[in-house]
Amino acid sequence: MNPLPDSPPQGAEIICVGTELLLGEILNSNAQFLAQQLAQWGVPHYYQTVVGDNPLRLQRAIATACQRSQLLIFTGGLGPTPDDLTTETLADFFGVPWQEDPQALARLQALYQERGRVLSEADRKQARLPLGSTILPNPIGSAVGMIWTPRPGLTLMTFPGVPTEMRAMWHQTAVPYLQHNGWSSQVLVSRTLRFWGISESVLADRVRPYLDQACPTVASYADWGEVQLRITAPGQDRAAALALIEPTERALRQLGGSHCYGCDGDRLAAVVGQRLLQRGETVAVAESCTGGGLGQALTATAGSSAYFWGGVIAYDNRVKAQVLGVSAETLATVGAVSREVAEQMAVGVCRTLGTTWGLSVTGVAGPGGGTADKPVGLVYLGLAQAEGPVTIVECRWNPRQGRDWIRQVTIQEALDRLRHALA
Amino acid sequence: MNPLPDSPPQGAEIICVGTELLLGEILNSNAQFLAQQLAQWGVPHYYQTVVGDNPLRLQRAIATACQRSQLLIFTGGLGPTPDDLTTETLADFFGVPWQEDPQALARLQALYQERGRVLSEADRKQARLPLGSTILPNPIGSAVGMIWTPRPGLTLMTFPGVPTEMRAMWHQTAVPYLQHNGWSSQVLVSRTLRFWGISESVLADRVRPYLDQACPTVASYADWGEVQLRITAPGQDRAAALALIEPTERALRQLGGSHCYGCDGDRLAAVVGQRLLQRGETVAVAESCTGGGLGQALTATAGSSAYFWGGVIAYDNRVKAQVLGVSAETLATVGAVSREVAEQMAVGVCRTLGTTWGLSVTGVAGPGGGTADKPVGLVYLGLAQAEGPVTIVECRWNPRQGRDWIRQVTIQEALDRLRHALA
Repeated sequence: MNPLPDSPPQGAEIICVGTELLLGEILNSNAQFLAQQLAQWGVPHYYQTVVGDNPLRLQRAIATACQRSQLLIFTGGLGPTPDDLTTETLADFFGVPWQEDPQALARLQALYQERGRVLSEADRKQARLPLGSTILPNPIGSAVGMIWTPRPGLTLMTFPGVPTEMRAMWHQTAVPYLQHNGWSSQVLVSRTLRFWGISESVLADRVRPYLDQACPTVASYADWGEVQLRITAPGQDRAAALALIEPTERALRQLGGSHCYGCDGDRLAAVVGQRLLQRGETVAVAESCTGGGLGQALTATAGSSAYFWGGVIAYDNRVKAQVLGVSAETLATVGAVSREVAEQMAVGVCRTLGTTWGLSVTGVAGPGGGTADKPVGLVYLGLAQAEGPVTIVECRWNPRQGRDWIRQVTIQEALDRLRHALA
Repeated sequence: MNPLPDSPPQGAEIICVGTELLLGEILNSNAQFLAQQLAQWGVPHYYQTVVGDNPLRLQRAIATACQRSQLLIFTGGLGPTPDDLTTETLADFFGVPWQEDPQALARLQALYQERGRVLSEADRKQARLPLGSTILPNPIGSAVGMIWTPRPGLTLMTFPGVPTEMRAMWHQTAVPYLQHNGWSSQVLVSRTLRFWGISESVLADRVRPYLDQACPTVASYADWGEVQLRITAPGQDRAAALALIEPTERALRQLGGSHCYGCDGDRLAAVVGQRLLQRGETVAVAESCTGGGLGQALTATAGSSAYFWGGVIAYDNRVKAQVLGVSAETLATVGAVSREVAEQMAVGVCRTLGTTWGLSVTGVAGPGGGTADKPVGLVYLGLAQAEGPVTIVECRWNPRQGRDWIRQVTIQEALDRLRHALA
């Protein structure tokens, strides 16, 4: 084991206090919110810690955080119950009296009166703060936070664990504090490019030099068949950071080619919808193994009625035949999961509903129903035009990924095929 | 500042590696999953750490974790890109060679061959492990993990950040390892009862004494219109814990009445499917504002083809009229969002597809399209039987909850109406 080089404390650390987090009872959405905010306001942030409602372990976490970070942001443990002990433990750790703050007490009394509740001895605890700290007011609930500099170069902020209260306090008091105290001198801006139809490793090989560059940084992620490249740069303001990002973004878009379908919050279904709208065209879907998921994805975008007319969920072969006009003979000879049926479904829904495009899906989502000939993961997509040719795509998804994954990537692949056809 | 008492390392620590977590780009769902699993298997767990893709800071996090924890569980940083550096950094930290593992390489080569991809130099990195460690196989993807005891009393496990892969590896290898190595001596078992159609506060009032009891504990949660009561008890084994849970579960089910639709991993759509299967009946859907989501929910269950035949996504009024036979006059006079249209859609799809039941949805999901008369959140559900009466339900969801929420609770409410009809 090699000794680690010394380095002075720097940046912010988020410390979430609560046994419910250690038991996995709740998702740590507070950490994500605070991380996003710190990034947005340009406050460097290198560590997050989760610790339970235990004073000694909380003290250990504080000791570790003081050695590596300059701004400690606590959530949780500010309420009136015996297991709410963040404020008390902090006072104890720094050896400072923990005493009732007249301003906090007055505010607490007013709040309880307003709600017609009696302030118990336990509740009064919420008005106690370490000597020398400043109230971080809570505009919603009873638990107040604090901002405290217990020693030079170290600042603490405490927030309750209730997300709505924490967020209100953050925006109202913490952000102005950080701006006025030199923490938020620059912003960090990220842009995420989204790719479909290319694997993470192939894309990484194409863009290799950018993954190694220092500024802007580029990182790649893959999830549910989609690959993302995130470009991040600091700047005096958002415009300056975006100016740094722009040349890298242009280069990555070029290298990714038509696999790049959008950026940041873009969704494939919405990108497809935008293109349909521009062309004044419409689409209908005929779904077997996705069972309605393609329609649901298209209609997740508000205003989709302008280009999405509807579709047929043809899960059973009777529906394929009776509603979409798929030939009973084709179903009997080559089976429902076939190029031929995908083609007839796409043509059928396009004709029945009278849209510009008809998009069909038929496949084996599993886990059962696979054969040697037609294994789980085999999917055919059909794309028909009212008076034009029909394109059929065969997909062979990894059956080990499971039913949900196969259905989800099938939906995305179908949307992507339509996107390319609309290019 | 008081000195902290010494205490030996104990319990597990979850260490999530990834700059995307520090930037708040993703929710740390891996930490929640692992926390739940550790609780379930009775492995004590006192800390969680998040650190970015930075070797020195990762080494510092490792150093801290070694001092306080005995089992370090890492997620993230196992892939082929340059910022994937968890394995390498661990080898470096413990001063052990990081070398290609023949077994891991053979598996990687086979996987790439199977997918018709070429194994690049960068990809090969995924087959390198610290000397003395054991492969933790990945049944889904290319990034393998490891189980390693670099010194007595300290065990490390690494997992990729991709949740599906991490979970599969956890269940397949990590859980048996923990059981065989004395980590899992007592279990904590939870049972979650699921309720629809009752608010959290009304249910909490009904079950109040149980929320205050010490063992088993009962906690309530509400999410997307559903309310859950989680009952938790410890035990030497699962059977002992379940025996403690059983009387409370029975009482809560009684108090919740028919609002309780299932427990643990049950889904409304699967419960409905089970009942249809038992009765030998079938269902078809006619969806407007949910756009296919009801069909998707019903077909999320494997084997749903036995009772779900399909449906019509009648997003545009032309589809309602042409495919489902909704009267053009009705559409013109009372509008698409009406009792009458819901009724005709349900009857139409039931007749067209020839199923026992027809379930329809028409409503205003927003954010646009609302009027004083028909505000955002107004939804009509229709439930028809081949030869029987039609039931129409009017829902008025809170428009402030937004489009996604309104669509989702509409799907659940429709399923719940069918569940009650099948009781």
